Amino acid sequence: MSAPPSGTAGPAATDAPSVAAYPRRRSMGVDFGGTKLAYAYLGPDGIVANQLADPAYLREGPRGAAGDVLACLHDLERRGLPAPPAVGVGVAAQVTEAGAIRFAPNLGWRDVPFRSELENAVGLPTVVVNDVRAATWGEWQLGAGRGSADLVCLFVGTGVGGGIVSGGRVLEGASHIAGELGHTTLVAGGRICHCHNRGCLEAYVGGWAIAERAREVADAEPANGRALLDRVDRPEEITAATVGHAYRDGDPLARRLVEETAEYLASGVVGLVNGLNPRTVVLGGGVIEGLPELIPPVAEAVRTRTLPSAADIVRVAKAQLGESAVAVGAAFLAGRLLGPGEP
Amino acid sequence: MSAPPSGTAGPAATDAPSVAAYPRRRSMGVDFGGTKLAYAYLGPDGIVANQLADPAYLREGPRGAAGDVLACLHDLERRGLPAPPAVGVGVAAQVTEAGAIRFAPNLGWRDVPFRSELENAVGLPTVVVNDVRAATWGEWQLGAGRGSADLVCLFVGTGVGGGIVSGGRVLEGASHIAGELGHTTLVAGGRICHCHNRGCLEAYVGGWAIAERAREVADAEPANGRALLDRVDRPEEITAATVGHAYRDGDPLARRLVEETAEYLASGVVGLVNGLNPRTVVLGGGVIEGLPELIPPVAEAVRTRTLPSAADIVRVAKAQLGESAVAVGAAFLAGRLLGPGEP
Repeated sequence: MSAPPSGTAGPAATDAPSVAAYPRRRSMGVDFGGTKLAYAYLGPDGIVANQLADPAYLREGPRGAAGDVLACLHDLERRGLPAPPAVGVGVAAQVTEAGAIRFAPNLGWRDVPFRSELENAVGLPTVVVNDVRAATWGEWQLGAGRGSADLVCLFVGTGVGGGIVSGGRVLEGASHIAGELGHTTLVAGGRICHCHNRGCLEAYVGGWAIAERAREVADAEPANGRALLDRVDRPEEITAATVGHAYRDGDPLARRLVEETAEYLASGVVGLVNGLNPRTVVLGGGVIEGLPELIPPVAEAVRTRTLPSAADIVRVAKAQLGESAVAVGAAFLAGRLLGPGEP
Repeated sequence: MSAPPSGTAGPAATDAPSVAAYPRRRSMGVDFGGTKLAYAYLGPDGIVANQLADPAYLREGPRGAAGDVLACLHDLERRGLPAPPAVGVGVAAQVTEAGAIRFAPNLGWRDVPFRSELENAVGLPTVVVNDVRAATWGEWQLGAGRGSADLVCLFVGTGVGGGIVSGGRVLEGASHIAGELGHTTLVAGGRICHCHNRGCLEAYVGGWAIAERAREVADAEPANGRALLDRVDRPEEITAATVGHAYRDGDPLARRLVEETAEYLASGVVGLVNGLNPRTVVLGGGVIEGLPELIPPVAEAVRTRTLPSAADIVRVAKAQLGESAVAVGAAFLAGRLLGPGEP
């Protein structure tokens, strides 16, 4: 087992949250992602984040997952870290209150009693939670949202997920999916979204949508689209990353696409700030990590276009936990599961 | 003092909430509206709602308000109802936690210590709250949202206000204006809103916006606009009510405007349901009361266009308290102020 991007997570080193923010007990969180497994260890000394190479769940499905959790625990042992008394797990899935997975579209899992399976095999109290919900907890408790009782998190990756904290509580909703901010309306009657509705925020700013918009404009304006088209063998291969790279190289069309994306994102965030009146808006996810230039225009729009009482007190911040957010949030929730106690 | 539309409020008579839903103590709520004063009395026997003719606050400003509250109390006495031990007040204003009015644009009031002034003059414990927040409490506790822990209220009048209940709590927000759902984004870069931002939900479905859209299309298509234009002396006099009346008379242009409004409202509500995952969406306000035909297409869109987990459990309902919602909600909050006790 190798462990590629090892070490403590950046933010914990450079902008260390107060120790009081950490649960007093140690805990581990595991992010069963669509393409890789990340884990995070929380202890009184901060966060240790790592990835697991070649995790079994990607080949074997849920049956392989317990072995992956054990491999993470062995990795901690090898580093000389005390074993955590509880494990948190984040999955891109609908998760029931009992920790069963109803449906995980990216992994193709359906109706898996994941929490009880993991607890039986690993022998530790386990909490299973939706990955975006876990990331919201992570950014709220140990990332860019620390100290804020009213928080909106927007994670802009291939898709767009979100989480809402209001009055010091993460909103759950009537069927536990509150915070699907990628599917709030941005353009009534607009572009078709992967959810089949029209005009969702995700259908404009999600990675897949940026790529789709780029392909359309490169197709319509081949001369302007040259810088994009030259980077790929076929137009269908243009991704949001292609746009980001062309933008870095000064391509005017990529610049236009990025500016349009910023304006769409700004319009969406302005509406969310008016509706939810947060103290902090956290922007994260792969698209934001790749194009942090999107943040200042969003912050400017929030300052100048939201209702004055909302604008006066809100700040827009970049997520701090990066790819570790899900694992850190899952670890935090595992520590919370145990309640207060000796470390 | 006369008391025009007297008697118990419709919903209490036709769809009586369980007595358990009422606070055990009696209370009175007063809605200091932009053009009229409504009050509501809550007791173990139900709701008594009424209006006060020629209230002093509309002529004299905040100084006249205490006399108006006393007039409401006298009106109750005349009806043989026991005096309430507390008063709730709803105002279209930014209200501080201490019950001071920061700014009430429609009334032109600014920085009024309203709660302490009323308490001193009336001699009863008083709670002062934003009118839309009060209406949300009213519909939640005693109207169409009864029994729902996750509720979105949308009040579509001249403007569009809203309120959010999640996990059994009314969201307040970091500066107490959470729920400004009229200023969530519906069309990025779209029509200019009264808040100066572009593309807000209110700028499409608020009464002023329906009127504005109607005037534009009547101006652009005078032949089609005849039925609208014939109802007014000058095009500027077209209102949402004009559209509603022409719609009732079968005018094709009014029908188009109403259908477009329904589609805009549906797109907005679909996004709110995805983001907030409520059990109940309550639609109220003058535009909805005048055009209840807007509700079925919204309900249909919510059923077919929201994320399945959200669609499965949500229902769209018409507000039940009508023009009494603010006063009823304010009365409920006054009763809550007293805590449990003998009636």
